[in-house]
Parts: sequence; C-alpha cells; structure tokens
Amino acid sequence: MKDLNEVISELSQSSNKIERRRPRRTSRSITSGGKRSRERTLSPQERLQRFETAVQQQVVSLPADTKHIRMIPLGGLGEVGRNMMALEYGDDIMVIDAGLRFPEEDMPGIDFIIPNTKYLEERVDRIRGIVFTHGHYDHIGALPYVVEKLGYPPLYASPLTRGILLKRQEEFKTSKKVDITDVRDGDSVKLGAFTVNFFHVNHNIPDDLALYIETPMGYIIHTSDFKFDPDPVNDKPADLNYIKELGDKGVLLLMSDSTDAEEEGTSISERTILENLETIFKESDKKIVAATFGSLLNRVQQLIMLAEKYGRKVIVEGYTMTTNLEIAKELGYVRLPKGLLVPAKDISKYKPEEILIICTGAQGERNAALMRIANKEHRFIRLDKGDSIIFSSSVIPGNERSVQMLKDALFRQNVKVYHYKMMDIHAGGHAKRADLRKMIELTRPKFFLPVHGQFSMLVNHSWLAQEMGVPEENIVVAENGQVLNLNKEEFFITKETVPANYVMVDGLGVGDVGQIVLRDRQMMAQDGMFVVITAVDSRSGKVRGNPDIISRGFVYLRESQELLKDVRKMVRRIVEESTSYEAVDWAYVKNNIRDDLGQFLFQKTKRRPMVLPVIIEV
Amino acid sequence: MKDLNEVISELSQSSNKIERRRPRRTSRSITSGGKRSRERTLSPQERLQRFETAVQQQVVSLPADTKHIRMIPLGGLGEVGRNMMALEYGDDIMVIDAGLRFPEEDMPGIDFIIPNTKYLEERVDRIRGIVFTHGHYDHIGALPYVVEKLGYPPLYASPLTRGILLKRQEEFKTSKKVDITDVRDGDSVKLGAFTVNFFHVNHNIPDDLALYIETPMGYIIHTSDFKFDPDPVNDKPADLNYIKELGDKGVLLLMSDSTDAEEEGTSISERTILENLETIFKESDKKIVAATFGSLLNRVQQLIMLAEKYGRKVIVEGYTMTTNLEIAKELGYVRLPKGLLVPAKDISKYKPEEILIICTGAQGERNAALMRIANKEHRFIRLDKGDSIIFSSSVIPGNERSVQMLKDALFRQNVKVYHYKMMDIHAGGHAKRADLRKMIELTRPKFFLPVHGQFSMLVNHSWLAQEMGVPEENIVVAENGQVLNLNKEEFFITKETVPANYVMVDGLGVGDVGQIVLRDRQMMAQDGMFVVITAVDSRSGKVRGNPDIISRGFVYLRESQELLKDVRKMVRRIVEESTSYEAVDWAYVKNNIRDDLGQFLFQKTKRRPMVLPVIIEV
Repeated sequence: MKDLNEVISELSQSSNKIERRRPRRTSRSITSGGKRSRERTLSPQERLQRFETAVQQQVVSLPADTKHIRMIPLGGLGEVGRNMMALEYGDDIMVIDAGLRFPEEDMPGIDFIIPNTKYLEERVDRIRGIVFTHGHYDHIGALPYVVEKLGYPPLYASPLTRGILLKRQEEFKTSKKVDITDVRDGDSVKLGAFTVNFFHVNHNIPDDLALYIETPMGYIIHTSDFKFDPDPVNDKPADLNYIKELGDKGVLLLMSDSTDAEEEGTSISERTILENLETIFKESDKKIVAATFGSLLNRVQQLIMLAEKYGRKVIVEGYTMTTNLEIAKELGYVRLPKGLLVPAKDISKYKPEEILIICTGAQGERNAALMRIANKEHRFIRLDKGDSIIFSSSVIPGNERSVQMLKDALFRQNVKVYHYKMMDIHAGGHAKRADLRKMIELTRPKFFLPVHGQFSMLVNHSWLAQEMGVPEENIVVAENGQVLNLNKEEFFITKETVPANYVMVDGLGVGDVGQIVLRDRQMMAQDGMFVVITAVDSRSGKVRGNPDIISRGFVYLRESQELLKDVRKMVRRIVEESTSYEAVDWAYVKNNIRDDLGQFLFQKTKRRPMVLPVIIEV
Repeated sequence: MKDLNEVISELSQSSNKIERRRPRRTSRSITSGGKRSRERTLSPQERLQRFETAVQQQVVSLPADTKHIRMIPLGGLGEVGRNMMALEYGDDIMVIDAGLRFPEEDMPGIDFIIPNTKYLEERVDRIRGIVFTHGHYDHIGALPYVVEKLGYPPLYASPLTRGILLKRQEEFKTSKKVDITDVRDGDSVKLGAFTVNFFHVNHNIPDDLALYIETPMGYIIHTSDFKFDPDPVNDKPADLNYIKELGDKGVLLLMSDSTDAEEEGTSISERTILENLETIFKESDKKIVAATFGSLLNRVQQLIMLAEKYGRKVIVEGYTMTTNLEIAKELGYVRLPKGLLVPAKDISKYKPEEILIICTGAQGERNAALMRIANKEHRFIRLDKGDSIIFSSSVIPGNERSVQMLKDALFRQNVKVYHYKMMDIHAGGHAKRADLRKMIELTRPKFFLPVHGQFSMLVNHSWLAQEMGVPEENIVVAENGQVLNLNKEEFFITKETVPANYVMVDGLGVGDVGQIVLRDRQMMAQDGMFVVITAVDSRSGKVRGNPDIISRGFVYLRESQELLKDVRKMVRRIVEESTSYEAVDWAYVKNNIRDDLGQFLFQKTKRRPMVLPVIIEV
C-alpha cells in the first residue's frame, strides 16, 4: 500500500504543477498544434489510471509452500476496520474475517471500503473456509461483496454472528444462497492443514470467539477483538485458565487486538457501567433517552434490565439497533420481557417517567434517531425540559464536531446530558494495556504479531510485548498486503507483496471509483466546476452565437455577469485565433481554453474551479 | 440564525422531494409545455437565494437607548471562534474583538468564516472604537475584511496584538492605512460613554488584556480568553488582588471565557510543562522536533530556552510561527539569544543532538511543516531512527484523524513520539472549572454572561455560576445576533435580533458563497456531475450528431460505454418527442431530461450525480 500511496502523491503533485504551468504564448504560433498534442506524454490522470489498473490486475505468483505458514493481512493492519487475514499452508488457505471500514474525509460519496481479495480470487479452489470472530461490520461487512468472487467457500460463525450475517445477506442478490455453519465455544473445525478451535472472550457484542489454530508448525492464537471483564453483564467471563492451559502447551504465535494498545489500565467492567446507568435512572423523573451504537448489544441489554426494574417501557429507534436486537432476542442472546417494548407512536400513552428510548445516533450521525429527535424531526418523539439524554458510547475519531453540534442542539432544549467524560457510562470493547499484558502473560507466545489497529497502535503493542519478554526479533509489525512467513524457527516479512489497496464501494459500484473519480470530486467540492460550450461553424471557423456557460459551486452566477462576459470574449478569441490555421487540432484548442480560462478565473477570484471546455462543430 | 437554518433545512428537504418526484408521462402531452414552466413557482434554489438575500439586506431599526446598555454578540457564542461583541449606550458603540473561525466539514472550499457586521455598518458614525483583547485569529482575524465597511474606527490593542494585526494587514489592500493605538496593562481609553480599563491576564500568547469597562449603568468585566497561572513562563501572573479590588467596587456584569467550562480542575502550569519538556531534552541523543501552534508563543519561548540550555541550535519552520516569532522578538516579548537560530538549509552542519526544530503542523495539517517532514517532502529536514517528536498541543476537535495519520507516518520512521496524553507537555490557554469559579469568586458579579464557546459550554458555565451563587434569573445564555439589555436592575434578552449569520470567505470573495454554491459543492463531492449537450436543428427539431457527455466524479467513463450509449439514446428520444410540438419550451425539455436521466442513472448506479442538460439550437 505504501507504494501505491507514494506514487499517487507523486502523481498528484506533478498534476498540480502542470495545471499551474501556463503554456508560453510565443511557442503556440510556431508549433503546428496538431502533432504536439497527439505526441504529448500521458496526462497525470491517465498515468494514475494506468497505475491503478496495473495494481488491480497484478497477478501474484507465490507457489505453495510447506516450509512455512504463509500469512497475508489483507486489511486491518495500520487502520481500524476492514479486518481480513489469510493463512496458507501448502494447498490450504483459511481466512479470518472479512470486514469493511468507513471512508476517510477525503473520500466523498464513498459508502465504505473493503479489502482487495484479488490474491484469494486467484486461488479459489484452495480456500478451505472463512471463520468469523464476531458480528461487527469491521469483521463481517465485506462478505456480501466478496463471497461470490471467492467461490462461496465454507463459512463458520457463532450463532449470533451467523444471524447478523444472514440478515445482512438478504439485502444483496447473490447467485447462490449463502450457507454458514454454526460454531460455539469449544467447537473445532478442520480446514485443510488447519484445525481451528473456537473459545469464548469478552467484547461488547455477545458471542465473540477467539481462535486457537493447530497448524503443522505449531499453535497460533488469534484473540479476535477482545477485552477481559471479570464481571460482564449477561455474559460469562473469558476462561483465563483455559487460555493459560493453551499457553502451557506452547504457543508459536499470538495475534492480538491492538485497538487500545495506547490506552493505559484496564477497561471498566460492565458491572460498573450498569451501576452508573442505574444512578441516572434513580435520579430521573422525566423521559430517558439512551443513545449508543446499534451493534452494542450488551449495553442495550443493560438498559432493558434497568427499564424493567424502574418501571419504564422501552422504545427502540434506529434500523441497525432494531434488527440486531431482533436477531439477538430470537437466538436468546438478549432477554426482553414481554410487553416491555412499545412502538414509538404509542409514546403519548405513557407518562414521561415511564419511558426509556434506546436509540442510535450517539456519534452525531445526520440521519440517525437521536439527531432527528434533537432537531424536532422525529415523527413521534419530542424532548422536554428535564429529560435525560445518555451518550453511552465513546466518540469515534472524526466525529467530534458532529457530536458537539448534537450536544448543542440538545442543550438548547434544556435537557440533562450525560456523557462518558462525566461518569463511567461507557466502556470500550477492547483490551487496554494491562489486559494486553495479561494476554501475553497467559499465552507466553514465541512470536508476536499485533493486529487490528492504526500503525501507531501496532507499534505501541509491539513495545508492550517486548516489555513482557518477547524478544524484539520475534515480533513483526506488518502492513496490509505484506506476506509473512512463519515456522518453528522464524517469523519474518518476505519481499513479496499482494494487492491490498482500498476497494471502494459507492452505490452499486464496487471498486469502480478510483483515485481519479475521487480527485475530481474533491476538486469540485473545493471550487466547483465551469463548463464552457462553444459552437463553431465547421466551414468558416467562426464561433456561432455566444458560448454557453454552466457553472456550479464556483460563484453565484447571477451576480457575476461581468465575469461571464469577459469569459465569453476570451473563449471566442482563443477559438477564432486557432481556427485561422488550416488543420485545427481541437484538443489543443481546448487545452488553451482550459489553461487561459483557469488562470483568468483564478486571478479574478483566487478560486480554481475545474474548467471543462466543450467545442461543438456545426 | 436558528430561523435561517430551519428554513434552509426545510428548503433542502423540499428540494429532495422535488428531485425524486418523477413527472407523470401522461400529463406531458396534455399540457402545452410553455406556459406550465413559466408559471411554475420558484425553485428551491431560487427561494433559498431570495431568503439569503433577504437576511443580508435586513435593516435593523433599534433606536438609541439610554435606559440600558445594549449588548449584541455578533460571533463567538455557541461556537468556538469568530468572537465579536458590540456594546451600545445612547449614541455610542464600542466593539470587543473581530475574529474569524474555520469552516465546518460541510463547507468545502471555504477559507474561513467571519461575523456579519451589517448592524454596525448601518451605524458607522456611532462606533467609538474596537478594542482587541489578544492576538489570536479568532479574536482579530476578521479585521481586514470589516475595517473598511466599519469606516476605519479607532482601534486599540496591546503592542504584540497590534504588531500581529499590522503584519497581517500587509496582505490586504485597503483604501486607507490602518492605524492602531497601543494600550497596556493599566491603561484606560474613553470610548464615548464607555471607559475601558485594560488589565493583564494569562493566556498562551503574551500580552493578553482583559477589560474593566466603566459604563453609565455600572462596571462590566470581560475576561478575554484567560487562564490563571501562578507560575507562568516568561510572563507575570495575573494580579488576583487587582481583580478582587474590582470585585470590591461592585461588578454589574461579568462576561467570562467558556471554552473550557466543561473541563474539571485547573490548567497545568507552564512551569510543569517546561519541566516535562526538559525531561525529553535530557533523554534525547538525536534530533528533537517540537510541533505546536504557530500562535503559541509562550511554548515557543520555552523550547528556545531549553535549546539554549542543552546546546541545540533552533530551526523554526512554518509561516505563522516565523512571522509571529519575528514580531514578538522585535517587540521584546520573546527572548532569542543571538546565533541560536539557524536556517533549515544548514541542518547538515550540525550533529543531530545539536538540533531542535520548532514547527507548525501538530494538527496534521496537510501542508504544514511537520507533515512535509513526515512525508519526506521537506527540502532539508529528514527524520532518522531515534529522533524525538514532541506534539506540544492538544488536538482540535475534527483533526483527530489527520493527527492519527501523521502519527502513523512518524511511527513508520522509527522515531519516538511524545504527545499530551502521555505526559503533560501541553496546557490549553483557557481557564478550567476551578479557575472559572475563582474568577466569579473574585469579581462577585450581579449579572453573568458566559461568552466564547459552544452552546454546551455556555450552559455548563452558567450552571457553574449558579453554583457560585449568581441567581439563575441573573444569568443569560445568549446566541449570536440576539440583543441583550442591561441596566442596574435587570439583564435580559430582547425580542429583536440582528443579522449574525456566517459570512464565508473563499479566495477573494467575502460573503458571495452562500448556501446554494455550498450545496452544489456538496452534491458534486458526493456523486459528481453529468452534463449532456444536445445540438438541435432549429428548423427540423432533429438532434444533430450524438449528444456530448461530460461527467466528472461520477463513474470512470471509459469503463461505462454501455451506460453512455443508453443515455444518448434516451436524451435523443426526449428531445425529439418534445420538438414534435409547435412551440418548444426548452426549459421544460431540460427538466424532463434532468428528471428522467437522474432517475435512470440512479437506477443503474445508486448514485445521484448533478445532471445538467444543455440544448444548443443550431
């Protein structure tokens, strides 16, 4: 991935340079326009596109290997989300997770990003199965997009994860029905050379399974996303003795969740969270609105328990939350007493102090339930003075400003706002440093690979492993697309790489939006676009009528008549100057319009709209 | 402002509805196209534009009042930045600060936002002066844009603030030279009915002045941005006795900085910061790179002192930092020993352990010095294994992701990274709750107005004031554009409002980018745009040649030939169907193309590019 980024950054720099360079007037009349433009080298856009195509089509020839376990992270290393990892031995490939991630700010319009599975697509007949660790989208969300390309391999997941996967699959039309085998704590599955044993760990969704993989080289542990909670709610603690026993048998490699590797201490027990939430229930004599993630089922369960205890009916709002809750309830993972749930439209039948609303939108998402409630756009729910709003979630980096806007909107309505900075009403799902130490202490691995997290988290996790006695040379900090080799003696990054670039999903398109389309979007977002359409009489070379101008996102046209007049005059001049030659090279004329006009508009406005000249011969 | 937002949100909703509504085919042949479209009501765009114009042109008729001090916050309330407040009594107006703020994520291309000064522009002859509290852009940055419109009123600022203001003014061409009167701790200035006494408080830029204003109704204190630091670096502590004495004389109104009103405790003393920074200097045996805000002059001073003590030369990188440092040095606010500063190009003349680089870019800004260094794009500075990077700043909400990217880029180069979460190497410039309590305790105001901060901060500050004994009815939480009345007996929000909407600066344009241009930018950023140009023979009504298509940011056109073919066919059909009538209403035809094509493209791609049909009659 680093290579791709470097080249792209290089290319965009050169593109800027080209845009700013103004063709020298003098040379124009000397050169015979036509040839010049036909001979010119590839534009940055074209070079970028070729590079992208090359990356996508790159065939990786890695022969089967029985001297090492080959490990290829396809996502989730150096980023949060998009987790996917291939393990290979001889002719057998097993895959852990297939997640998605959300786009960065510089990827407007993109719905999400999935891993590039090119390497696996070329080896479909060798994939023995995909195992899913838990039901969060950063671990399962890419499946609908890749399952067909991977030839419908056998899939394994715990009952809840399976339920969520199957529910989501309903939204997609695939040529074949997706079949998923149910696995539970203690189950084993043989995937070619790999025997995968599943064992229970804690997270903030039930039914999270870590992996103990028996391989020809030794035992590998993959922690899944995990935390240790000695006192979880509606769940049992992870069995530390079992993990220690695995350690006693000798662990060749530990792959451990790095998401909170920069956070000191241990995560707060869900029991403490429950007690703090209870305080709010005790104090409140009006409506309570509790916002959290739609996937945070354990928190939803806590809130339901409190509602029952304090005589409140529960209204659940938000699509993901409703569906997840349904699945979890059906499978018995959430206990929801009969009659407790009421529809939002019945809210007026109850007193404020008899109502708990559990909803999505704690991140300030524009269309989520809490935002609609705060903006008075919800069909049934309005806030009143004295209502209590609970933000039972942390703020995902990047969402700080929208959460602040949401908080302001709430404060304007005289409600009480509780958030995780004020009291412990949220705990993350990931092991912090003390628990990460404990995991290493229990498993005592020979080799160590930090997984799941930004690069800085992986590095900090690697330092922690060193502190815990894993020798520096036995630790690998890897990036997506690198190929790792593991055997009894060594663990190292090879020279090969595998395509692991972002595959962007936008509407129905998977992977069809590349850097070019994105860059155009960014450009237009900055300063808009400016289309000039000139009709030219093909015989006389004269401009017919006035050039048409279409511009959006640049200036308010109605107030810029003077500017437009100048533009029309300029375009007319450029076109008629060019057509005084015998053979007119329209590409060359358009380039001149683009350069001169771009320059002119920048001079006048200090903005750089995307200039698009059109010439129509009539 | 709330009204504007509401209307805009209403309008955008209705616009969405209109876009999604498909004109019924059946009605098309019945209606005689022409009249229909000419009679149609205003489009949402037009309505929005009219509303905007109306807001901007709104004349506020508030007669002179000698029964109250009239106070009008024009910016800085319910937001961080853009601070500006007008105080009015009879025929006299004084103004506190004129700041800018940075755009939100949904304002692509905008450089910054300044206050709407319409109200003041209509009363230019009554403005007795603008006083500036300190030299940060959120308090001074709007001056170049408004000074002319406000008729070059008398300006007052401390020497450093004045230096920064004058330096910035050089970048702007105004019809008249701007003149600023120098004021210092202890100075008094008479501005009509107001006598402004300036007194020293601590912040993270030197020369910050709070205001003690004598008015016909009583004494008003404006804290400026402030914190209490008993042990500041290169500065003296605020004189608490003096502030207490002011309290003893009786304070009618306290306006106090709310930026950190949600943070418990006191801010860390700069002495502690200095000690922690020193630890890093002691431990480091390679280059040190310290990144902070360009305006955080006190931190820069600390770093310079440490460089001197530990035998390192100093390289300063980043435009704002360099200019601010120059001004401060010239005015004697920063002590910079001779020969300590060396240019970046000389870096190779020194050993790594002899170098300290102080630079901008701690927020992960794309073009700032640290990012260029991290990306290996800096002309002279490269990082090496073992270098120490100090982030001596907090992360501004909204910048978390870019800071993470920057950190990752640094970790990839094997450097040590120190940030404020690891140790106290940064303190904010704002009083936290303990110090806010102290300010109220010292001044014992009758009335209280929280200023400078998001709405949630203002509310929390108001609660704090209540806890400190200010009666609830004596506290006003106000919004920009509201008109407050204050006299000896009462302090309240009146029914009037004054235009206080965002005035957006984009390149040379001030206020010319409105909601329409912004919305177009957002739309194009999401799914791009799609222009179809059809040449029609004006006599036969037949389409000439193939419709031209220009699209950017939508799909990669070269891979969508099939789609484009369908589009051309469709457009041709729509045009030729319409031109079979006698009088062709082109606006109506274009609407049909826009609707049908938009629908078609959405069906095929689940994307909604901005569709722009052009018809050229030839």
